[in-house]
Amino acid sequence: MPNPIYVINPNSDTAVTAGLDAAVAPLRLAGGPPIECVTLADGPRGVQTQLDVDTAALSVHRFAVDHQGHASAFVIACFSDPGLQLLRETVGVPVLGISESAVLTALTLGQTFGVIAILQGSIPRHLRSWSAMGVAGRCAGEVAIGRGVSALADRPATLQAMCDAGRRLRDERGAQVLVMGCAGMAPFREPVQQATGLPVVEPTQAATAMALGRVQLGW
Amino acid sequence: MPNPIYVINPNSDTAVTAGLDAAVAPLRLAGGPPIECVTLADGPRGVQTQLDVDTAALSVHRFAVDHQGHASAFVIACFSDPGLQLLRETVGVPVLGISESAVLTALTLGQTFGVIAILQGSIPRHLRSWSAMGVAGRCAGEVAIGRGVSALADRPATLQAMCDAGRRLRDERGAQVLVMGCAGMAPFREPVQQATGLPVVEPTQAATAMALGRVQLGW
Amino acid sequence: MPNPIYVINPNSDTAVTAGLDAAVAPLRLAGGPPIECVTLADGPRGVQTQLDVDTAALSVHRFAVDHQGHASAFVIACFSDPGLQLLRETVGVPVLGISESAVLTALTLGQTFGVIAILQGSIPRHLRSWSAMGVAGRCAGEVAIGRGVSALADRPATLQAMCDAGRRLRDERGAQVLVMGCAGMAPFREPVQQATGLPVVEPTQAATAMALGRVQLGW
Amino acid sequence: MPNPIYVINPNSDTAVTAGLDAAVAPLRLAGGPPIECVTLADGPRGVQTQLDVDTAALSVHRFAVDHQGHASAFVIACFSDPGLQLLRETVGVPVLGISESAVLTALTLGQTFGVIAILQGSIPRHLRSWSAMGVAGRCAGEVAIGRGVSALADRPATLQAMCDAGRRLRDERGAQVLVMGCAGMAPFREPVQQATGLPVVEPTQAATAMALGRVQLGW
Amino acid sequence: MPNPIYVINPNSDTAVTAGLDAAVAPLRLAGGPPIECVTLADGPRGVQTQLDVDTAALSVHRFAVDHQGHASAFVIACFSDPGLQLLRETVGVPVLGISESAVLTALTLGQTFGVIAILQGSIPRHLRSWSAMGVAGRCAGEVAIGRGVSALADRPATLQAMCDAGRRLRDERGAQVLVMGCAGMAPFREPVQQATGLPVVEPTQAATAMALGRVQLGW
Amino acid sequence: MPNPIYVINPNSDTAVTAGLDAAVAPLRLAGGPPIECVTLADGPRGVQTQLDVDTAALSVHRFAVDHQGHASAFVIACFSDPGLQLLRETVGVPVLGISESAVLTALTLGQTFGVIAILQGSIPRHLRSWSAMGVAGRCAGEVAIGRGVSALADRPATLQAMCDAGRRLRDERGAQVLVMGCAGMAPFREPVQQATGLPVVEPTQAATAMALGRVQLGW
Repeated sequence: MPNPIYVINPNSDTAVTAGLDAAVAPLRLAGGPPIECVTLADGPRGVQTQLDVDTAALSVHRFAVDHQGHASAFVIACFSDPGLQLLRETVGVPVLGISESAVLTALTLGQTFGVIAILQGSIPRHLRSWSAMGVAGRCAGEVAIGRGVSALADRPATLQAMCDAGRRLRDERGAQVLVMGCAGMAPFREPVQQATGLPVVEPTQAATAMALGRVQLGW
Repeated sequence: MPNPIYVINPNSDTAVTAGLDAAVAPLRLAGGPPIECVTLADGPRGVQTQLDVDTAALSVHRFAVDHQGHASAFVIACFSDPGLQLLRETVGVPVLGISESAVLTALTLGQTFGVIAILQGSIPRHLRSWSAMGVAGRCAGEVAIGRGVSALADRPATLQAMCDAGRRLRDERGAQVLVMGCAGMAPFREPVQQATGLPVVEPTQAATAMALGRVQLGW
Repeated sequence: MPNPIYVINPNSDTAVTAGLDAAVAPLRLAGGPPIECVTLADGPRGVQTQLDVDTAALSVHRFAVDHQGHASAFVIACFSDPGLQLLRETVGVPVLGISESAVLTALTLGQTFGVIAILQGSIPRHLRSWSAMGVAGRCAGEVAIGRGVSALADRPATLQAMCDAGRRLRDERGAQVLVMGCAGMAPFREPVQQATGLPVVEPTQAATAMALGRVQLGW
Repeated sequence: MPNPIYVINPNSDTAVTAGLDAAVAPLRLAGGPPIECVTLADGPRGVQTQLDVDTAALSVHRFAVDHQGHASAFVIACFSDPGLQLLRETVGVPVLGISESAVLTALTLGQTFGVIAILQGSIPRHLRSWSAMGVAGRCAGEVAIGRGVSALADRPATLQAMCDAGRRLRDERGAQVLVMGCAGMAPFREPVQQATGLPVVEPTQAATAMALGRVQLGW
Repeated sequence: MPNPIYVINPNSDTAVTAGLDAAVAPLRLAGGPPIECVTLADGPRGVQTQLDVDTAALSVHRFAVDHQGHASAFVIACFSDPGLQLLRETVGVPVLGISESAVLTALTLGQTFGVIAILQGSIPRHLRSWSAMGVAGRCAGEVAIGRGVSALADRPATLQAMCDAGRRLRDERGAQVLVMGCAGMAPFREPVQQATGLPVVEPTQAATAMALGRVQLGW
Repeated sequence: MPNPIYVINPNSDTAVTAGLDAAVAPLRLAGGPPIECVTLADGPRGVQTQLDVDTAALSVHRFAVDHQGHASAFVIACFSDPGLQLLRETVGVPVLGISESAVLTALTLGQTFGVIAILQGSIPRHLRSWSAMGVAGRCAGEVAIGRGVSALADRPATLQAMCDAGRRLRDERGAQVLVMGCAGMAPFREPVQQATGLPVVEPTQAATAMALGRVQLGW
């Protein structure tokens, strides 16, 4: 039995983790690695501020150090990728961040991507990431739905806001593919795709798929 | 039984296809899609000139149109990604190019990537691709080994040239991860990695892994 | 008598060719090369899809190979520049693409250029070109008029749509110069310029002018 | 008496702090804010790994939260700018990072800057920063001297290595201004400038000068 | 008594100079250099056209050459930075331009900056500057208020127009920090900041603060 | 008889003007505009410093204003393009700069261009131009030959230095096309091309060719 890929939800919202667990289910293949989605109990309810992000980086690191002996890969399932570079420097297995992987995957689905963010305050952080990745030129824009992580649980209101944001990104900014900018948005991928007619990337799926490949290939 | 992922080698060199077949073997998982590596018999011995590339685009397209009814995805296994945008416009399943996928994967393994090209004449074509992808800023450089596709079959000489190129990219250009710039280089991934101490991306593995994820996720 | 500059219209729409012929007439100078505008009879009615583009590349190549012995230069008169890199690798005379030349010329007429495209589906292809050229930062935006090549023949409706697009590019995106994104738009340069008050680049004129210079200079 | 500007050395090396104290002395002006250089006793000997950086971010944050009531500004005196965005989100006074300020200052002293790093492993982190800042195009390169923070105390060897690195950046990479890539290099500014003939930016001076301006201007 | 920092207003509008004098007053510190704001009597009423800019460059140069013997630094107080590179090549003391310094300072206050320009015709000139500085990717946009330098004297109308422009930059372009794009706007910093809720950079303050630091540090 | 294209040599070196006159001769066509190469007698011996450039801008402007009534276009034949934006704002005919036109033309001849500069001090000025044009990503590098404008008259030594520079740009920087970075280098285009095997762009030819096209097309 191979070691699992750990998909780490650094916030303490187990509903988010449940959503991720369902989202990555199709990537659980006989003969492939198990995929375990875990909740960091000491995390905040939602990773929203820079303090949340920087604190989460160390929580994720502690988890990874504790589990690296029997892990085949780690996926950091928060759209701020807390601890991504830290884990890459310290653990000997593949480490994928959902934000980075989502954008890389989006680049195969359209020439310009748009991001549906949760909060306005997340956008500067994202823009720094796209620039640090050197792909800012392909970002058509970001629109925030103005809902924190726990407010995503109101599904009809969240879906409506996401579809509105997606249409604005498509029509006003020219986005050709959408990226959902929060792990907690996982349940909304398909309806947003249907509503907008654009391909929609679910970040944790994107990252876990990349992790699966890396584990199987052994590099 | 799910439809296969077709890995299309657009040149007629079956030794190259055999190398790809071995390279992607770890991605064949029970419950996952079969992965079939095919050789386009009407292709050139190696896709090296722009005429090769542009001709190959239409050959790949013919193959894809013929097989799209029972394919789950297509991987274009030539580092010039012939027909990539064409297939994306015409077939209804995921299409991945090995050059694009290799670079996207490399971006998760180092801040700057270097490319080991086969021929000097390939480099401008690659540079146009990295620019079109918007990631040229992360390319530390390219070094050609001066060997055409069929000359790769002389394994000791090829390996020596690849290791030399990899060390130059590492030491003179600051590359932190290497991308092998030809499908025919697949058998050399591990020894180049050992010789250079840098992670090395094998493009067909990178693209097939991304295809596997997309197939399983259904988007 | 010097060899002609061939201006190749890769679609089979002779009305488009006639428009080009009129557009380049002022570049026919005594002592300079003849300028012959040709229609590729085997081309599609309009080069609109990626399949059209990739097929046209090979048609253009065949024409160029057949005529290179008595050509002083080739201009590829389709805004997707089909076969541009291919011809540059294979024929020994100057090769200009109208899309590339139009944008380079626009860079001398304003700090930011806007493109009037025919169809929405052309825009991603154009964006890849501006990025591959390394000039995407100077593109203020593109607006499609939603008319295919043959629909351009309805002149009043086309002109109206082009002027609307030009004003949007000027007012909403800050374009300081406009590029007409289709060879078939040649007859509309002057009225669009008058309607928008911005300089307007007709691509085939731009490319043929650059070809004329190269022919005269012998490099 | 105005509140002080706190210059925070997040490592525990008091010799580094002493060097900073001397470096910023000319910025202590009658009528201006006091400038207090402090050592975070719980910090590592040198901030060198990503774990050091991410841990330091929270230490710096704790210090800033504790002192914000009587601070006029904070300068984060570590070239990885640990906690920069975090402090900007949480404290109500100006926050400057020495890496960011050094590069911004360097942009006024030459068209291309080179960075003298301490360790090879720091360079990817720096490159991500220049990209996130959007100024990577002006970085001519980085050269590491291969000495950790505490090894800087061997002054003759350090100076020799820094001058060698500076000359390589000038001659091989075309750097027109040098940035010293570690707070601990403060004592070496003048001799490196003399040895290379290039202007040399001392990062803590650069950041403290910007902080002084912001404090005086009240924004 | 140290030599003064000369803040050079290259237009002949003494009301503008008076505004600058008030703006930089907080940077006059006991023990620091005097700061003298001067008006170039032979300048135009406002530096608005490229001819104004290019003429002003030589006026500024003459002033600097005449005064370099007893100057500690020069600040060019016109948002087109006339003579910036010229002075840097010719005088032996620090030279700061208010446009360059304003943008560099803005980069520490938000991820994307917006510029409030006086006239539409200034915008291409500014865009060339941000590109030449390599920071165009961080410019969210520019909006002109359509008022020349002397028209700024109508304070209520100017303030209204500036607040409108600032809100558009914030809401339509996503600017996180505003830069006032004319020296004559100095009196409006605080009310625009209050009206928009964004940090606002006054360029002459930004440049003079950087000059003060450079003078004190002796490099 | 159409009005002439004025090719303005802003330095007073008539040998340079004679070289330009020979270089543009092939662009003099029956039925086309005359091409007059003029020397600005009040110019410096060579435009080498920023003071030369900024002074030359106004000289060029005076000439253009005096001659605009009977000019069909102006070409500014100095590689610093003095007065380029100024003339574009003030005269009603096409204005081309040789530096801008040379680089735009080079972009059609190779993916990466290298520049042979006269003096090291010119390089930062050029880099600012390529960045302002948004094409810096395609500049492989610049190498100075260390000879001022008047020293170019020693033809054997100049040619040797240019060929050395060209080979370094080709072999160490990967340049695929060379641009001669001074109007005074016009006589050396062909031998440098032969020595390096790369296409070589002579800037005044490139600009005059673009001017010829613009004049004939009437826009």
